[in-house]
Amino acid sequence: MLSIVIIGTGNLAEHLLDAFLPKEALKVVQVVGRSQVSLAPFKRKVPTTTDFLNIADADLYLLAVSDDAIRDVSERLSHKDGLATHISGSVPLQEIQHKRRGVFYPVQSFTKGKPIDFKEVPICLEAESKTDLELLRLLAGSVSETIHEMHSEQRQYLHLAAVFANNFTNHLYHLAREICDGRNIPFDVLRPLIGETARKIQSMSPYDAQTGPARRQDRGTLEKHGSLLEEQNHKTMYKRLSESIQKTYAKEL
Amino acid sequence: MLSIVIIGTGNLAEHLLDAFLPKEALKVVQVVGRSQVSLAPFKRKVPTTTDFLNIADADLYLLAVSDDAIRDVSERLSHKDGLATHISGSVPLQEIQHKRRGVFYPVQSFTKGKPIDFKEVPICLEAESKTDLELLRLLAGSVSETIHEMHSEQRQYLHLAAVFANNFTNHLYHLAREICDGRNIPFDVLRPLIGETARKIQSMSPYDAQTGPARRQDRGTLEKHGSLLEEQNHKTMYKRLSESIQKTYAKEL
Repeated sequence: MLSIVIIGTGNLAEHLLDAFLPKEALKVVQVVGRSQVSLAPFKRKVPTTTDFLNIADADLYLLAVSDDAIRDVSERLSHKDGLATHISGSVPLQEIQHKRRGVFYPVQSFTKGKPIDFKEVPICLEAESKTDLELLRLLAGSVSETIHEMHSEQRQYLHLAAVFANNFTNHLYHLAREICDGRNIPFDVLRPLIGETARKIQSMSPYDAQTGPARRQDRGTLEKHGSLLEEQNHKTMYKRLSESIQKTYAKEL
Repeated sequence: MLSIVIIGTGNLAEHLLDAFLPKEALKVVQVVGRSQVSLAPFKRKVPTTTDFLNIADADLYLLAVSDDAIRDVSERLSHKDGLATHISGSVPLQEIQHKRRGVFYPVQSFTKGKPIDFKEVPICLEAESKTDLELLRLLAGSVSETIHEMHSEQRQYLHLAAVFANNFTNHLYHLAREICDGRNIPFDVLRPLIGETARKIQSMSPYDAQTGPARRQDRGTLEKHGSLLEEQNHKTMYKRLSESIQKTYAKEL
């Protein structure tokens, strides 16, 4: 049995706790938070504390805290033997101030109150010893079916790619919505298209899935679209993204 | 019973035929194509012809042809009484050279060989008379649960918004893949995230769903990301998209 202390009470801490609780190989012995209020959703599930001096002994400490807090929080665990593990995409392993350090990075976007099937969440692991890596593999393997070993530099680039695939993609949905709002078109009309665009990619490469006037190098339509758009920001984004697509497929002509 | 002739043999013509065939209220009497080869996938399902002089009489002619061909093909139907209907997002109704004209625009991305549940495809309709609109409503209502009436100008903007939501989004998937490829990270790691990003939007607004350093106006991370990216195009796209997000949320600070 692997004993775990979760430090942090955010959205991801909640999702992780809910993924760990039903697993017989795992035991969450404590959740540590800054205040009783932040711990409220955890109290009926596991023992909790706000006091770092009261922190329980465990095989693994999961630092579900903001990137900026990883260094400080790990220092406060320095007297503990358990593996100090952060869950961030962009923070190097070395940021952890502890004799045993690990990374457990779930590559997914977690929304408060929206359950996620953890089986399908890829988890990227990093540690400095074989024993610690085995521990992380045990943890990851009990909740997910996809585990990747990845060093800090690789993980940093994965996190950057995730910004394109998630943050920027979502912003394009927002720009699409602004265009719809400007003409009283309900955004609902686009929702099935958005769903299908992402589904298509589950089995195709984005390179092959690309369609539209920029891929066809259809300058007539590109110019017409550019002149139709009314907001300067929409025009600029349309131009830049179309140019990037045109460059990508320029060799095909 | 509504009788239909489909003109065109592309991907969308196939999807539409498959959606129409099982419906008792609809009868596809013919598919018209340029060559026997292009008609091959249709032949075992419905009567076909390559000869415009042999075109059948029908209540409705569905012009499943490229935008550029709509004018010509509609002219060649001028002796027919049925409603000449195109299926394009960006072409105005007036482009159709016929006494009765209509638009039937399914807002979805169709992939060859990948079945689509037409019930969930929003369909935008336009016609010049009440009778013709009723005819289009009958057709759309037999395959889809979501029907919108929309004039040409509105539809043009919807189509532009769809370019952002589909073409540009897919290109961001491709840029994410390039970043992964550069560091030997399998693109599969991002696929569940891409799926969830689109699923989230089915019940939330993209404005509320936005996360990441640009939304948090976290200049430190933005600068670090910018310097990590190696390709000029990745740097430019990162900068432009981050600026657009920062502007969107600037009022929140």
